Amino acid sequence: MAKVQRFASVSRTNGDAGYESYKSHHACPFEGVNEMIKACNLQNYSIYYWDGLLFSYYEYVGDDYEADMAKMAADPTTQEWWAAVVPQMRPFGADGPWVDMEELYHLD
Amino acid sequence: MAKVQRFASVSRTNGDAGYESYKSHHACPFEGVNEMIKACNLQNYSIYYWDGLLFSYYEYVGDDYEADMAKMAADPTTQEWWAAVVPQMRPFGADGPWVDMEELYHLD
Repeated sequence: MAKVQRFASVSRTNGDAGYESYKSHHACPFEGVNEMIKACNLQNYSIYYWDGLLFSYYEYVGDDYEADMAKMAADPTTQEWWAAVVPQMRPFGADGPWVDMEELYHLD
Repeated sequence: MAKVQRFASVSRTNGDAGYESYKSHHACPFEGVNEMIKACNLQNYSIYYWDGLLFSYYEYVGDDYEADMAKMAADPTTQEWWAAVVPQMRPFGADGPWVDMEELYHLD
């Protein structure tokens, strides 16, 4: 079994309308989005919400994270998906909709 | 295999000093804390930080979450641990240091 790498990041929704749209989109992602995520070796992927905050958690089980993320970014369906959902978000930083968090604790 | 229930919650640290203390405590929890967490059927437990925000994620694999949480809350070592770390946090709500988040998306 490949070593599991965990990734967590934070963002926020763009007002109440952003939350409602983000929620409905993620209840039924575009066809092919989930399949590409799996093909890029991500698993156990969850997104949570509270009062404007979004929190994302997933595990990477492949051998080359950068290459798999580049593969995902090059996928036309994923690009359509991001174009649809990113406007529903309001980033914390300037580097994109999500900001990486620091792991302070882990227990398998 | 028991069904996995996922739980996520958000909190924040009590200033820079709270962050430093929270981080150092969680790098080396009191002896017995991790063991009690496992004994209460929690697994894959992570806590993340960004800019004052704390995010907690874990999975429950037992048959009675309420009973296991009550067991943990009754454990003297866990009580000592909470007494040490809760002052390092500044809750969002009035119901304790952590607020439950809503799951908007999950992909196994």
